[in-house]
Amino acid sequence: MTARAVEPLSPDGLEARLRRIGAERYHSLHPFHRLLHGGKLDRGQVQAWALNRYVYQAGIPRKDAALIARIEDRALRREWVRRIHDHDGDATDEGGIARWLTLTDGLGLDRDYVRSTEGALPATVFAVEAYQHFVYQHTPLEGVASSLTELFAPPTHAERIAGLLEHYDFIDESLVAYFRRRLEQAPRDVGFALAYVRGHARTIEQQQAVLKALEFKTNVLWAQLDALYFAYVEPGLIPPGAFQPEGP
Amino acid sequence: MTARAVEPLSPDGLEARLRRIGAERYHSLHPFHRLLHGGKLDRGQVQAWALNRYVYQAGIPRKDAALIARIEDRALRREWVRRIHDHDGDATDEGGIARWLTLTDGLGLDRDYVRSTEGALPATVFAVEAYQHFVYQHTPLEGVASSLTELFAPPTHAERIAGLLEHYDFIDESLVAYFRRRLEQAPRDVGFALAYVRGHARTIEQQQAVLKALEFKTNVLWAQLDALYFAYVEPGLIPPGAFQPEGP
Repeated sequence: MTARAVEPLSPDGLEARLRRIGAERYHSLHPFHRLLHGGKLDRGQVQAWALNRYVYQAGIPRKDAALIARIEDRALRREWVRRIHDHDGDATDEGGIARWLTLTDGLGLDRDYVRSTEGALPATVFAVEAYQHFVYQHTPLEGVASSLTELFAPPTHAERIAGLLEHYDFIDESLVAYFRRRLEQAPRDVGFALAYVRGHARTIEQQQAVLKALEFKTNVLWAQLDALYFAYVEPGLIPPGAFQPEGP
Repeated sequence: MTARAVEPLSPDGLEARLRRIGAERYHSLHPFHRLLHGGKLDRGQVQAWALNRYVYQAGIPRKDAALIARIEDRALRREWVRRIHDHDGDATDEGGIARWLTLTDGLGLDRDYVRSTEGALPATVFAVEAYQHFVYQHTPLEGVASSLTELFAPPTHAERIAGLLEHYDFIDESLVAYFRRRLEQAPRDVGFALAYVRGHARTIEQQQAVLKALEFKTNVLWAQLDALYFAYVEPGLIPPGAFQPEGP
């Protein structure tokens, strides 16, 4: 919040401020995504993206567990635990992480190598760890608010599905299943989270905290693309030990 | 481990050492439990026990979430997440915490007061928090091992059900539902956890760590009964702000 607030925002006013953070800071604006969605990357660069993004995907259910570990309200835990199943899977669904591995398989990456995260950029790992630590060290309200980047995800996922299928001959429908599923899940999840934040962030201090939490989360996402761009696009300095594409 | 080990124990040898910890340190041995199960407490003392134990029950799913937050292995997370549902409930079952509140209701405690945990002994709160911190700060193997007090629980639960029903006219079948259900759940849970520890604690260092983890957990349980005994039995010094029984 740039100016010092003198009275709390209405729920609608708060939502407008949250949405402005998305409009200004969501990683859909990052040049790496423009290159990815516009067909400007080679196969090795797409591999690097999928390999690093795996670290984030694999960290999300642990992040959600860390959030649940902070929640005193049983009803809220019961709602939130569904997200662990969304990513880890359950008896009826393989889950988002398995779908992400279908993508990395299809891109020709060795599954054990991907799962080991040995080739991931350290900056990716640090960003993902920071997200988990954030939710464990802040209030559940701030943890819930940090999930609200999902408000901005569906257009990016839709654009990504279209862009990946159109521009890359090594990507077919079977590889974008993760994003298709998130198009269904994200609106449901974010509807709950947004209502929760609108209902619970009532004081100026709480509202400033949720806005900062969402900004923090946009930083977590943005930092991952910065690291990818720096290592695999320009200047292309791959850190020691990180994934080396085989070349075009 | 008293003597310095020179080679790792076999899985059976390790299990025997784990069971010896239970035989020597499980809180079934605590004098407070002897009084509780033997009908030697008045209603106010039983209320104090149920009120404080609520803090532990309510903390368990957050402890399990903190453990899941440490687990890299998706299959293990999928197994462990069931425990969150066991306590918080799901679409088909109200869960263990709700059953515990049925007990505190039946003992005449105000539900909002119980859930606020305002009347709980600080020592209870500290012990429960220490458990959650332990699993978040140690390896998943140690976290799993810390759950193995469940190995020793069924005889205690069976004795408790019989003792409570026999000795206290203010306790009927509806109030012991929590323990009846745990008689079913605990063997299933502990079967998995014991097999996991037997299979994964292979080195001397890992075996020492899991034995220490189980010792730690017995301390968490024991400390809660020490605090109850001290405040409500002898010398009966109730800390400021803690629950005051109305007297017999």
